[in-house]
Parts: sequence; C-alpha cells; structure tokens
Amino acid sequence: MKKIANGTEYIDSLRNRDLKIYLFGELVEDPVEHPMIRPSINALARTYDLAVEAPELASVISPFTGERVSRFLHVCTSAQDLVKQNKMQRKLGQDTGTCFQRCVGMDAFNALYSVTFEIDEADGTSYHERMKTFLTLMHQYNYVIGGAMTDVKGDRSLPPHQQEDMYVRITKRDESGVYISGAKAHQTGCINSHWIIVMPTIRLGAEDKDFAIVGAIPVDAPGITYIYGRQSCDTRSMEEGDIDVGNAQYGGQEAMIIFDNVFIPNDKIFMDGEHDYAAMLVERFTSYHRRSYVCKSGVGDVLIGAAAQIADLNGVPKASHIKDKLIEMTHLNETIYATGIAASYQGHPTKAGNYICDDMLANVCKHHVTKMPYEMGRLAQDLAGGLVATLPSEQDLNHPEIGGLLRKYLQGAKGTETEDRVRILRLIENMTLGRNAVGYLTESMHGAGSPQAQRIQIMRSMQVEYKKRLARVLAGIEEVGDKDQVAEELSGYFGRVFGLEV
Amino acid sequence: MKKIANGTEYIDSLRNRDLKIYLFGELVEDPVEHPMIRPSINALARTYDLAVEAPELASVISPFTGERVSRFLHVCTSAQDLVKQNKMQRKLGQDTGTCFQRCVGMDAFNALYSVTFEIDEADGTSYHERMKTFLTLMHQYNYVIGGAMTDVKGDRSLPPHQQEDMYVRITKRDESGVYISGAKAHQTGCINSHWIIVMPTIRLGAEDKDFAIVGAIPVDAPGITYIYGRQSCDTRSMEEGDIDVGNAQYGGQEAMIIFDNVFIPNDKIFMDGEHDYAAMLVERFTSYHRRSYVCKSGVGDVLIGAAAQIADLNGVPKASHIKDKLIEMTHLNETIYATGIAASYQGHPTKAGNYICDDMLANVCKHHVTKMPYEMGRLAQDLAGGLVATLPSEQDLNHPEIGGLLRKYLQGAKGTETEDRVRILRLIENMTLGRNAVGYLTESMHGAGSPQAQRIQIMRSMQVEYKKRLARVLAGIEEVGDKDQVAEELSGYFGRVFGLEV
Amino acid sequence: MKKIANGTEYIDSLRNRDLKIYLFGELVEDPVEHPMIRPSINALARTYDLAVEAPELASVISPFTGERVSRFLHVCTSAQDLVKQNKMQRKLGQDTGTCFQRCVGMDAFNALYSVTFEIDEADGTSYHERMKTFLTLMHQYNYVIGGAMTDVKGDRSLPPHQQEDMYVRITKRDESGVYISGAKAHQTGCINSHWIIVMPTIRLGAEDKDFAIVGAIPVDAPGITYIYGRQSCDTRSMEEGDIDVGNAQYGGQEAMIIFDNVFIPNDKIFMDGEHDYAAMLVERFTSYHRRSYVCKSGVGDVLIGAAAQIADLNGVPKASHIKDKLIEMTHLNETIYATGIAASYQGHPTKAGNYICDDMLANVCKHHVTKMPYEMGRLAQDLAGGLVATLPSEQDLNHPEIGGLLRKYLQGAKGTETEDRVRILRLIENMTLGRNAVGYLTESMHGAGSPQAQRIQIMRSMQVEYKKRLARVLAGIEEVGDKDQVAEELSGYFGRVFGLEV
Amino acid sequence: MKKIANGTEYIDSLRNRDLKIYLFGELVEDPVEHPMIRPSINALARTYDLAVEAPELASVISPFTGERVSRFLHVCTSAQDLVKQNKMQRKLGQDTGTCFQRCVGMDAFNALYSVTFEIDEADGTSYHERMKTFLTLMHQYNYVIGGAMTDVKGDRSLPPHQQEDMYVRITKRDESGVYISGAKAHQTGCINSHWIIVMPTIRLGAEDKDFAIVGAIPVDAPGITYIYGRQSCDTRSMEEGDIDVGNAQYGGQEAMIIFDNVFIPNDKIFMDGEHDYAAMLVERFTSYHRRSYVCKSGVGDVLIGAAAQIADLNGVPKASHIKDKLIEMTHLNETIYATGIAASYQGHPTKAGNYICDDMLANVCKHHVTKMPYEMGRLAQDLAGGLVATLPSEQDLNHPEIGGLLRKYLQGAKGTETEDRVRILRLIENMTLGRNAVGYLTESMHGAGSPQAQRIQIMRSMQVEYKKRLARVLAGIEEVGDKDQVAEELSGYFGRVFGLEV
Repeated sequence: MKKIANGTEYIDSLRNRDLKIYLFGELVEDPVEHPMIRPSINALARTYDLAVEAPELASVISPFTGERVSRFLHVCTSAQDLVKQNKMQRKLGQDTGTCFQRCVGMDAFNALYSVTFEIDEADGTSYHERMKTFLTLMHQYNYVIGGAMTDVKGDRSLPPHQQEDMYVRITKRDESGVYISGAKAHQTGCINSHWIIVMPTIRLGAEDKDFAIVGAIPVDAPGITYIYGRQSCDTRSMEEGDIDVGNAQYGGQEAMIIFDNVFIPNDKIFMDGEHDYAAMLVERFTSYHRRSYVCKSGVGDVLIGAAAQIADLNGVPKASHIKDKLIEMTHLNETIYATGIAASYQGHPTKAGNYICDDMLANVCKHHVTKMPYEMGRLAQDLAGGLVATLPSEQDLNHPEIGGLLRKYLQGAKGTETEDRVRILRLIENMTLGRNAVGYLTESMHGAGSPQAQRIQIMRSMQVEYKKRLARVLAGIEEVGDKDQVAEELSGYFGRVFGLEV
Repeated sequence: MKKIANGTEYIDSLRNRDLKIYLFGELVEDPVEHPMIRPSINALARTYDLAVEAPELASVISPFTGERVSRFLHVCTSAQDLVKQNKMQRKLGQDTGTCFQRCVGMDAFNALYSVTFEIDEADGTSYHERMKTFLTLMHQYNYVIGGAMTDVKGDRSLPPHQQEDMYVRITKRDESGVYISGAKAHQTGCINSHWIIVMPTIRLGAEDKDFAIVGAIPVDAPGITYIYGRQSCDTRSMEEGDIDVGNAQYGGQEAMIIFDNVFIPNDKIFMDGEHDYAAMLVERFTSYHRRSYVCKSGVGDVLIGAAAQIADLNGVPKASHIKDKLIEMTHLNETIYATGIAASYQGHPTKAGNYICDDMLANVCKHHVTKMPYEMGRLAQDLAGGLVATLPSEQDLNHPEIGGLLRKYLQGAKGTETEDRVRILRLIENMTLGRNAVGYLTESMHGAGSPQAQRIQIMRSMQVEYKKRLARVLAGIEEVGDKDQVAEELSGYFGRVFGLEV
Repeated sequence: MKKIANGTEYIDSLRNRDLKIYLFGELVEDPVEHPMIRPSINALARTYDLAVEAPELASVISPFTGERVSRFLHVCTSAQDLVKQNKMQRKLGQDTGTCFQRCVGMDAFNALYSVTFEIDEADGTSYHERMKTFLTLMHQYNYVIGGAMTDVKGDRSLPPHQQEDMYVRITKRDESGVYISGAKAHQTGCINSHWIIVMPTIRLGAEDKDFAIVGAIPVDAPGITYIYGRQSCDTRSMEEGDIDVGNAQYGGQEAMIIFDNVFIPNDKIFMDGEHDYAAMLVERFTSYHRRSYVCKSGVGDVLIGAAAQIADLNGVPKASHIKDKLIEMTHLNETIYATGIAASYQGHPTKAGNYICDDMLANVCKHHVTKMPYEMGRLAQDLAGGLVATLPSEQDLNHPEIGGLLRKYLQGAKGTETEDRVRILRLIENMTLGRNAVGYLTESMHGAGSPQAQRIQIMRSMQVEYKKRLARVLAGIEEVGDKDQVAEELSGYFGRVFGLEV
Repeated sequence: MKKIANGTEYIDSLRNRDLKIYLFGELVEDPVEHPMIRPSINALARTYDLAVEAPELASVISPFTGERVSRFLHVCTSAQDLVKQNKMQRKLGQDTGTCFQRCVGMDAFNALYSVTFEIDEADGTSYHERMKTFLTLMHQYNYVIGGAMTDVKGDRSLPPHQQEDMYVRITKRDESGVYISGAKAHQTGCINSHWIIVMPTIRLGAEDKDFAIVGAIPVDAPGITYIYGRQSCDTRSMEEGDIDVGNAQYGGQEAMIIFDNVFIPNDKIFMDGEHDYAAMLVERFTSYHRRSYVCKSGVGDVLIGAAAQIADLNGVPKASHIKDKLIEMTHLNETIYATGIAASYQGHPTKAGNYICDDMLANVCKHHVTKMPYEMGRLAQDLAGGLVATLPSEQDLNHPEIGGLLRKYLQGAKGTETEDRVRILRLIENMTLGRNAVGYLTESMHGAGSPQAQRIQIMRSMQVEYKKRLARVLAGIEEVGDKDQVAEELSGYFGRVFGLEV
C-alpha cells in the first residue's frame, strides 16, 4: 500500500478489510458501500481533500519522513501549531456540517508524546522512541489514527479492578506482547480509522495495574467486534432521495468496540503497568481534546448560514429580531472559537518539547460548547419557522398529483424555489433534531468529558488562594508584603497568563 | 353513531372514513392501522380515557345536553374553568409524553363563542346561536373538534388578497352555503378530529373580505386533501420492536390540509365577511392557546422523571450536580405551569359571559415555553450521558451472539437491567431529538405563535405610559396629582391586576 | 392611643418612643426626624395611606374587632386572601420603589396562626388563643407588627446550644414570663414597627429547647439595642437637595437587634420549648414570605418606567433594540408576579382553617426574584446610557456659573428638560447601585432565604419518584398498573395540582 | 521636568497645576489631596509602580527615545504586543480592583498611528510625522495621555452640524493653529492625565467638516473646565476611617470636559477636516478599546477572591453550591480574558506597520463584558450573605460601648476576626453597589460603546453570505463549484481566521 494522497484513495483504503461490524442485528458486508455508514466515511475523506486544496491549513511536512502528511498526524511543537489545528478544525466543520472524527487520535498521540517521554525519564523505559517509530509508520502511509479511551464503566462506584470484565485490560501476556479484553463505548470514527490507540480512561490505582495499558492496534486485528450505534434519523440515509436526510453527503460515526483477547506486540505498547501516569495521560489528552471542540464553530457557521438562508427564503423582510438572532448566534459561535484559540495560543512546551494547550482555557472552551450549540440550535429552529417540523416527504414533493400543489403552497418569497426552502429546512432539522444533531449537540455535551468534568478541572486551575490574597490586600486586611507578588504568581495558570512567553 | 364513551370507541369512530391522506407519496389506506399514524391517535384517545378515570379533571356536565362530555368541549364560564383546563392539560402531558392534539379546537370555539356574540351584537347576525347549536351537536357525540388557523402564507410581504391562491378563502357561494379553497399548514391532529373549524390566521382588511370566513367542516368533506408531515425519527414507529422508538405508544401529528372548493353549509358558518373581527378572533384564540402550552409542563414532568431515572440506572451516586440539575429542570417546568395557571386565574368574562385568559400572562407563559423545554432537554441529555447518542439497535441488543455481550457491557448500576437503561435513554432521545422532540421542542417554539409574536403582544399590554408616570413621581418630576391613581389604572392589564375580582 | 387611621397618624405614633438606636457611633435622638431614617418611615406610612385610597386593596374588616384594619394585619382564610396580599404588595412596590417593610410580620403571624393551633392540638397548650388575643390588640390600634427571625449564626457548623451567646434564647424565667438574650441580624423595618414577634430561625433539636421561643415584644421594651445598617449611598439622604438621592421620599430599613434579657410576659408567648415545631414554623413562614416577594414586581414596574422614560429623554428614536429590552424587562417582571399569584392561588387550608401558599410555587417565585431583578437592573443601566455613572452633582447643576452650561450640554431630546433627565438617571442609579438597590437587588437575593434555600425546598417538593414512574411507563418498563394513578398522586404537590379544589 | 520614574513621581507631577475643576458646586483646590479624587490618582499611579516591579509586563524600550517607558505609551508592532497589553491590563485590574484609566489614550494613539498614515498617503498631509513627534515627547517624560472621544450628543436625531454648540468642533483658526469648543462627557481619568487627545466620536459627513478635528492638548490648557462626576458611595472616601469605603486606596474617575475656545497648535493637530476618516478612526479605536476591557478579568479575579474569602469567613463548610458558584464566576471571567487575547492574537498589521486587533473578536469580548461582570456581581452577593447589605457603620464597630457586642455577634467562623469579615463584605459592596461598581459594572456596560454598538459591529463582520453558501452546498442546492473556496474566503474576518499568519 502506498501513502494516501486524497479522499478517494482514503475511501479505497477502507475497502476489503475484514472487520466484524454489527448493525441492526446483522453483520455489515462492506461499510464503504453501506448507505448509513458512508456519510461518515465521506466526512473523514474530506480531511484528505482539504489537505490537497489548502495544504498550509490541513497538512504539514513530516519531521519523520520529510514528506507532506495530514496535519492530523502532526506533533505540535509550537503554540502556532496548536492554533493551526483549530483553524483546520473550523474549516472542516464548515465543509462537512458534522463530526469528521479525526481529532481523538491526533489529541491522543500528542498527549502520549510527552507522557511517554516522562515515563521513560522516570523509569528508564523506551516508550517515547516506540511512539516516534509508530508515528513514522503512520506518516509513511498518511493513515487515520483513532483513539479509544472511554471504557464502559459498569458500576461507577467501583474501581476497574473490582469489576470482572468491563474496562479494557491486559488478560495475558507472552514474550511478543500482551492481550487485552473489555469494551470501549462511544468510539467516534473507529471503523473509519486504520489504527486505534487504546488508552485508559481514568485515574488508576496500584491494583488497577493491568488496566494501565496503552498500545496501537490495527482496526482489523483479530478479536475485535464493532457494534454500530443508532442515532436520530439514521435510517433516512437509507431511503431513496437526498432531500429528507438534510445533509446527504456527510455524517458522524459512533460505535462500541468489544475486545476479546486482542494482541498488541511489544513495539506498539506505549504504557504497560505505569498506573500512576494514567491520570496524567487523561488530563493531557483532555487539555488538547476539549479545545479541539473549536470544530463546532465551523459547524455553527453552517447553521448560521442555514438560518440566514431560510429567513431569506421565508420572505420575511429583514426584521430586526431576525438580524438580532443571527448576531446572537454569531456571538456565541465566535466565543467557542476565541476561547479555543486562546487555549492553543497560551499553550506551553512539555518536557518532551512538544506543545500542550492551556488547561484552564481549554476547559472554558469546551464548557461553552456544552451549552452554546444548543442555544444556537434553538435560535435556528426559531428562524426556520414551524415548517421545519411539519414538512411533507420528498416523495410527496415529487408526486405527480400533489407535488405541484405542494410546490405552490409551500413557496416562500417570490421568485424562490420551494425545493430550496425544503432543503434548507431539512438541513436545519438534520443539525438540530436529526442525523447530525448528535454530532452538533449531544457530542458537544459529552465528547471529551461531560460538563461537570470541565467544572472540576476549572476548579483545579483557578488558584483561589492567590485571588483571596488580592481581595485581602485591597480590603485592607493584609499588607502587599515583601515578597515579589509578580514573581510568586509565575506558576500554574497565572504563570502562563503573566509569564509573557507569547 | 352514539356518543363516544372512551378511547376505544374513539379509535373505532375513526375507522372507515373516506379521507384522502398522502404519506411518502402514497395514499394511506387506513390511518388507524398505520404504524406511523397510530401513536398520534393513541395520544388523543387518552383524552377520552382520562375523562373516564378522572371525570372531575377531564370532563364536564354539558350545559347543552346535560350529559357528561369531555372538558375539551367545554365553554369556560369561570376562571376556575380555565384553570381546570390547564390541570387536565398537564395530566395528559404526563400520560402521553407528547402532544395530544385536542387544544386547538377547544381554544378556537372558546374564542369564537365571544367573537360571534359581539359580531351579532354589532351587526344583527346570528352566528352565536349557530355556534351554540354546533356545540350541542358536538356534545351529543362527544366529538373531537380540530381548529384550522395557520394558512400557508406565501409571500409574507403581500396581504391575502394580493396572492392568487394561498390563504383559505371563499371561492363561490350559493343559497345553501359557501365553498372555500386554499391551504392550511401545520395542522395538529387534523386527521384525528371529527370536525374542523376553519378560521382566518391574521388581521384582515376590507379587500380581504373573502378571507374572513369561519365555519365548521367534517374532516371527510369532499375536496379535502391531507399531506402528512415528516418528523425526526418518524419511521422508527414502522420498525419491528418497541425499544428504539423510545415511546412506542404515543406521538403527535402534523399535516397540511389543501381545500379545493370545500362546501360549508350556512348553519355551520360563524363569520362571513366581517373582516374587522379577524384580528379580534386571532387575539382571543392566542390568549387561550398560548396559555394552553401548560401541557408542556406535563411532558416536562416525564422528562424530569426520565433524567432522574437514568441517573439512578447509571449508578452515579447522588452527586450534588445531578440533584442540582433536576432541581433546575423542576424550577423551569413549574414556571411554565405557574405562569399558565396565573393567566387562567386572572381570566375575565367577555360580553358573551364566557371567560378568557389574561393576555399578558398567557403570552409570558408561552414565551417561557419557547425556551425552557430546550434548556430542560439539554439538561436531560447532560444527565443521560453519552450513551444516549451511541446506543446499539434493538436488534443487536436481542441478537443471539452479541446481545448477551451488550447486556453485560452496557449495564449500569449493580442489580439493574441493561434493557431498562436502554429504554430510558431511548425515551430521552425520543423527547429531545426523536419522534416527540417536535412535540416537546419545535412545537413549543412555533405553536400558537413564534417567540416574536409573544413579544409584540407583551409590548401591547405593558402599559408603559402608566409605568413612566410611576417613575416620574418617584424621581420628583411629577406630582402624585389629584386624580385617583388607583382608579385610573383600572383598565387594561393593571385593571386586571388591581381589579380585585379574584 | 387610638387606632391609626392614615400615614400621618402612623408617623406620629413613632414619635417620643424611648428607643436605643445607634448609627455612625452615636445614639439617634429621634428617628422620625433623622434624614437617613425618615424615608424608610415614609415607605411604611404609604401602607396606611393606600388603605385609605384603595380600601379593597389594602384593608379588610377585622374578624376580631369588626372594624377596617390594614390588610397587613389579616389572617388569610381563602386563596383569594392570599392573592390579594400579592396585589397590594405590587401596588406598594409601585408607589414606593423600595421595600415597605411590613410583610415579615404579616407572614409571621399567618404562619404562627396554624402552628400554634397544631401545637395546642398535640400538647394541650393555649398558644392559639393567645395569638388571637394578641391579634385583636393589634387590630384595635391598627399597629405595625415586625417579625424577628434571622439570628446571627456565629459558627454555622455548630447548633445554637453549642454557641455561648449568639442565637436568641431564654436566659431565665419567672412566674410572669421569660427573659431572652441574643442578637437578630437583618431586621427589616424593625424600628418602624410597634411590636415585634421573635421566632427561631432554624430547625431545632432537643438540646436547643431554650431557643424554641416565640413571643411578642413592644419595640421599646427595656433591654433592646438597635444598630442601624449602612447601605450604598445612605448618606445622600442627609445631603441638601433632592436630586442626587434619586428617590427622595422612600427607602428601606435594615438594623441589627441585640436583646439583653428582654422580658416577654406569659400571655405574649406563642411557643416555649416545643423545639420540634421550629422547623414547621420556619417552613410555613417561608412559604408565605417567599411568595411575598411579588412586591418586587411593583418595584420592577417603576424601573421599567424609568428605563422607558430615559429612552424618551435621551431622544433615541424608538429603536427596536430599546423596545425589545423593555419587553424583556416586562417578561421577567411579570414572571415574578405570575409565579407569586399562582403560589397564592394554589394555596390550601391548614388545620386551623387559615390558608397557606403552595410551597413549590412560592419557592419558584422567590428563586426567580434572586435573579430577574439583577437582569432587569442591568437592562435599565443599558438603556440609561453612560451618563448614569458620570452625572455631575446637584450643586453643580444649580451652580450660577456652570449650571447653565451643564443644562445646555446635558440636554437630550429637543424640548425636554435636562433636570428631568438627571432626575430619572438618578432614580435608575438609586435602584441599581444606590440607596434602594439593596431593597431591589440584595434583599431580593437574601430576604426570605438565599437561593440555595429555595433549591433545597424545590427538591423536597418535586416528587421525583412519581415522575420516574411516568417515565418508566412510557418507556415500556412498567405497566400502568391497577392502582388508580390519579388517586395516588393526590398528595403533596401534585395533590394540589390535580386536586381541583380551585 | 524629568521623566516620571514611578508612582510617587507621577503623583507629584499632578501637583500645582492650574486646573478648573468643579465638584459639589465648588472649585477643587488641589485634586491630589482631595479625598474623593485621590483614589483615582492612586489607581493610575499603580501603572507606574507595576512598570518598576515587572518591567517586562508593564514597560517597553521606546523606539523613539531608546529608554524604558510605560507600555501604555507603546505603539504595537506585533500581535504579541497587543497580547501583552491585555496581560498588563489584567494585572492592573487585580492590583487596583477598579479602572486605572490609562487605556483610552493608549488605544487612541494606536488607532491614530495608522489613520494618520493613511490620510497622509491619500492627501499628502504630514499628520503621521507629527504623531510620531508627539509620541516622542510623551516618551521623553513618560506622560499619561488621555483620550477625549465621547461628545455630549444633544438631540441624537440630528448630525453634529445641525446642533448649535454640542459636539466639539473648530470655532476659529489662525496661522498658528485652531480653537475648539464643545463638551465631552464620560471622560475617564482626564484630570489624572498630562495630555489629552481630542477626537471625533462618530461618522461625519461633508457638512460636519469642522468637527473632524484631532489634536493633543495639555490638560491645563486655558479654556478647559472639568466637572467631576458623582458616583455611588463617592462621599464615603471623604468619611473618617478606611473600612466602610471598601477599597480605601483605589477608585476610578469620570468627569465632563467643557472646551471654550481651547487652542491647538498646528504641530499637535493630527486631523483637520478629513471628515471621511472619522469613521475609520472610531472603528479602529473601538477595535483596540473593546478588547482592552480584558482589564475587567483582573477586577473579576479580585471579586472571585473576595467571594471565596467571605465563604471561608462565613464558616460555611465547602458546600458544593458554593464551589460551583466560584467555578461559574471563573468560567465567566476567563471567557472575557480568552476572547480578549484571541482578539489581540488574531491582530493584523495596518498599512503603517503597527498592529490592530481582530475586530470581530474584540467586539465579542466587549459584548461579554457588558453581561458577565453583572452576573459575577450577582453571584458574589449571593456568596456574601445578607450581611453585605445590613452591616453597621465603622464608627459603631469601633464604639466603646457597642463595638464589642458587634464584634461578638457578627463573628463568623471560629478563630476569625469580625473586622476581616466586615472588610471583605465592604469590598464586595464596593465592587457591586458602591464606589467601584461603576468601574466594574456600568463602565463595563457603556465604556467603548454600549451593547448594541457591538452587535452592529458583529453584524458587519459576520460574512453571512459566505455562511449561506456553506449551508446551500450541504443542503444540495449549490455545487461546491469551480472557484477555490478556500482562496475566496481569504478576506475579511475569515481571511484572518484561515489566513494562517499566526
């Protein structure tokens, strides 16, 4: 196989794999040609095509191979690199109107890059070199790397080792490597990847040692079963026609992965028992990944456009309340973008030399993402008008007898096409209730951690003792003191704020 | 045909009608047995069964027939009557988790009751008596009355008479009655009704005289075509199984009605050309109907229950943030209820003697309904966890090979059933993204008027001149004055507030 | 002394009392003539004058004396009575633009009326008769009753009895009565009352028996010290002129009361050691009192009026965003009113026969009050323009040299007076930052319990098990069952919702 | 006079000036020693002391003089420079808890730097050189430059030239320069400046030519009158003691400036009649200045600290709702910071070579500032408890007789000082209702333009046509097309987003 050069070659690379995928109680013959799965493949293919059309935005020169590869395969070595990820993510959100599924893996190996370095430094292991070798391989083929983090958690009051067979863990090992079992839920784009990096999902204790396993596995490794997730309006992709589905070309993908003694060879293992680094890995991953939700500002651009377009087609004059709602949507959407790039821009180097995002701002960004798309969806439904929920079917619209009547009675502004109006309304339905509502709303809620996870992380970074001192000084309780205040605060979050390494 | 006594008899009453209904480009043979339509019929049937189970709540003694009939057929003659409608609506929202489609007609004839009285008083017509005769007929059979108000509006910058064939209007007349043509969009529950009252949808001018037509028509009158509306996840009702659909029993119904020279006999005409009463009718109807959205507090009770139930099944300990979100949902939900019953309670008699809601508070209620269910839906998705968007299909859950694995890996709290967890998650999906999300969210947005309509109505009722005077007096600009302030304000909204007729 | 007939007689009734009041480190000679205290007296006096001007609204025929007395002295014996309290409260908010300080006492004896009845029923005491005798006395003179509930709490991790001398408690007793010591904070209008009812502030245990004391005390009883609270811009009332203060006539009053062995005779004791009734008393009091915050909708009417008036004076054309903000303010303001009267209307009788508010809705009302006035204040500042924060002093405005310049340069719309503009801006400052901002904002936050107290109470009333069952039934987990669902829910909150005793 | 080296020298530089300042109807003898004015001088002095303590943060090497000067005098020549302004602003907000008044001038000459360049380029004038000469002079002395933009607007329906004497304009001219008259309102820190740059405040037409005047004037130029603005609790600074004022050391300053034929010599004129550049100047100024409101995140840090501190002193255990409110405050506060630095980071070079902020993101930042501090203030009042509004005076707290009682009864957590509790509460009062509430709240609302101004600017930048096309393509209405989409969007806002010049 040669290096994947564009979307078409990517799609071809997914053919003829031996994957065990269940959907509607049946094994999927060929996911590439499955009408319900294909839109998710198209979305990922778009990441390749954008790299061709806008190489500065979506590709880099690999430091490993010297050739141009996807920016999704890049280890960030500057704040600018982090920001550029965001810019690429926004563009892909604009182009697909949904989740293009390629950020998890990117954020995973960026986190692992520094964590493996620090494990090696402490323990004399060689995970970091293995990681670089693995990335070199990925760069050679320009592959898609998926990231598998979220275990099914079973009884959440119990740690992994007290549950028989839930979290992914090492079940046996031999000289050549280890075998893992367990299940991962909510695996975005897993079937559309070439390789998957398996990682632990929570802080682990000494007794959870077997769960402290990180490794790379080809998606078609023996012992893996995928069960495809059902989402709102999923079967519309399987109907005839391209109107009712709303966005005929693109969709997201969520599946469950069950591992049954799946083998990881030694050279693809990046953590093996170092349980006390699990929390570090999770935190670094989420620091990257929460900021990656800037992609939703690109999806939001589409929704704003759809809302503005339907206002035109509805023939409402430029009423002030309509303009005001578009402004509000934009204000919210740009807040997501701005907090995201601020998190990237205020990134800082790790010991390994690569850059990581500002954790506080990454959490602020993601926390907005758990709310603002919902409000934007509400506003889009407002601007759409009631028709978004009462439209007749595509078949009726094209019916020889009543089709003409519908096109007459459902016309909006003079001189516009009824079908255009229907198509935009179906797109709004798609993004707020239908196929891609999961990608725009529910995934925005739960991806990279549910809202409470961000609040906890914000609490950890908020340096409340420093702030209390500011208040005490101004209230006249405490002297400004001898210590150099500015120097003292140069640690943690305010170290990054005032550190001036911009 | 005899008086309908319960839900089963109601469903039977819908059989063997000669309706022309299009769905997916085909004529529907029998809507009663159509798997996608039946849930909407069940929801309406529930209004009959509740009347049997809780007669005080859902029925009244008819002043026309002396027999017990549905409260949905009652002309309210006290503020208590208005409040009781709300209580019945909340209960039916609780029982069905969706729209039970029977409020439009109720609110329509309550509005017409007083409008016909006032037309007669002014013009010497006899619409009011006709209306009472019509209601007597409806009471005799305990029928469902639908209300058809919302015209397709075509080019919104043009009045009805400047558009060739959009708004419903009189096309011809003879001695026995009139014939109407045009189209009505977003007709909630129309196919599940026995009779439909057709009404104008906006303020009309002298040149719109032909559009000032109100009349009652049997749903199977010749010349009517229904086109069924598609909604999110509608086809899940047509799949095997009862899990993935989320709420297998109940659903809403929206359709478009096209009238092609449909006849209305003279004795069923309640307005004919009195164009200057169109605005009065619309305003009175919306005053009732915006407050009828109290039903969504009943649906909200189900969503709160589902959110609380999934928190249990997820096995999360009673985390404070989870309790807090349930409290927030309740706070929002009860605000809808409280503003609704306040609008009813502060109702007042019309010239005809029946009672109408307080317009300001009815609009405040509905305006909350355009926002709060969306926020409640967002919170429910938060509490649900990511699984709400990645669940496997029912067929996979019941699959001989992987069904057991799924039931193991997707189990939540110890001792609970995975299937119960799946069912509750599918219910949350149903209400926030799926089949009944339209009934809970989009209909809450647009039904009875979109948000801006309420804001305009609030502006009209807000008596800003009175309030400016209050400010001027306190600022020392104006004397309190000779006039009895309290007396002066006894008109409009503050007349109702301080009028003390409680 | 004779029965107080109007505001003037009320003010006279406050003269020549022997009160020990500290303010700015000095004893206040005569509070009635103190320029900083007088506005609070005027506000309370307004309650008397309104009773003269609008007797239906603000007075009742006493069931004890047969004469007309203030509605603030009335024990509510119907839901209508509760609603009428709200209507009177809104009017007084409109007339004073601040807190008129008379609700605490009203809500206290209404709560005590039923609690004393139930103690007597259980324990054979005679508190209820004493209460009626006390109320008869109050009615004879048409007195102001204050309520003293909020103890200084010291170390909140310790119960009252583990703190040496903080909460008010019995220090000694003799045959004629008891003596109490301790301190009460945040005593609204205490100095403007004739009598004060002292009550416990929290749930008490057996060891807190001495703290379970309720009794009535004349404000000038020996052993009482009042320390007047400072609030934003309080000293402006003491300056020359009437412009800069914003609302020259009316203000609120908060003071601390220190009891040093203050005597309560036996016939004025309404609880003495029945510690297990303390929680009932607190809950009933807050059920009345949280709904009493409907008064803020009257204050809000003034602020809306001021915002609309300043928009006129600023000469801005009727820009859509300005109208929209006035609508938003009204929407929020009417939500407070509507939830309040809904709580009253859904009131229910106690064992003693008097009526108490619906607890759920009372808490929903108050919870809105902790947020909405702040948002309304923000919007009023928005509409005011920057001048609200940069206005020159009254002395400069009236200065012979620069006064004319200021009146020229600060003029707004053509033909309007600069001074009027200044006066309205100072009123907005008064209500959002200044003298009455405490009454409109901070008191709305903390009076009758801080926000978290309402959330806890909402949780207690929300009947989550009932709601979970609704969800399970619709999800297909549970059968509807044999039991009569409607009957079963006729307890607690939903008992009131569906009980139909309207 | 020599170059100002620190805060003390700055304060000395303000002595012995001949300024005509009115306050309370009297001329102010010496503003430096006036107790109500001094806190505002202290706040500005802090900008000098921070430059000494943290030179990297608050100073630069002047490109004009080669010596170290305040960063407030720096023309930004990189995005990093813009970001560093924000970091300095946040620190000063933390140190002073209020407005330090030095941003207007900084943002004014940064805008003028490029506008003068472009006027010169078009018209062959030499304003740009004059500006550089002026800045060199300012750098030599390390002076404070104020910016005077906001005219009193009189009748807003009329342009400047149709109002006799309101907007500042040229009244006469001679060979040496021009004379200006008119009034400027809301002049932040004007009395604390050394020089003021006068600029037009709105878009001007050809007939408004005389109003198109920009020039620099020393604050003590003949013909200038200052009238000091009154703000909430201003006179507390004039009372004895340092507790009740809340923040004894720092405050803001707002005054009105009346110009009566004030002379500007030719070499200090930077625009003279080029009316079509007025809009460009205003827009560039607001682009800098709206993002400068990042300072409020520093003030917000103080308020968060005060809220956390009072929770400790109140002795409430770490209740989850308290932690949650501190997290919420932080989330809001960091959103201000993040959107601000994103606006700076996405800055871009002007033709003159200096850098200007991203206009969209600057407006998004400021728009949050018009809301979030109000919500943070509300939450701080929530955490404070009712005592924040009922505290006794400092004199009572220190009174020989009752001081001890107050210190006993008002104590919170064991082992803490009552006075500390009082001081923190007074600080919260100061920031949310009192002296610095204007600086934290009202100025956040109206400074750099009221909320609607930002919404208009967001609308101008939102590129809705581009977004509509995104929607049409995904809805299947429009082909992706031949044109290179990515190239096409490289203009306006999305040009900056995807331009990749990071």
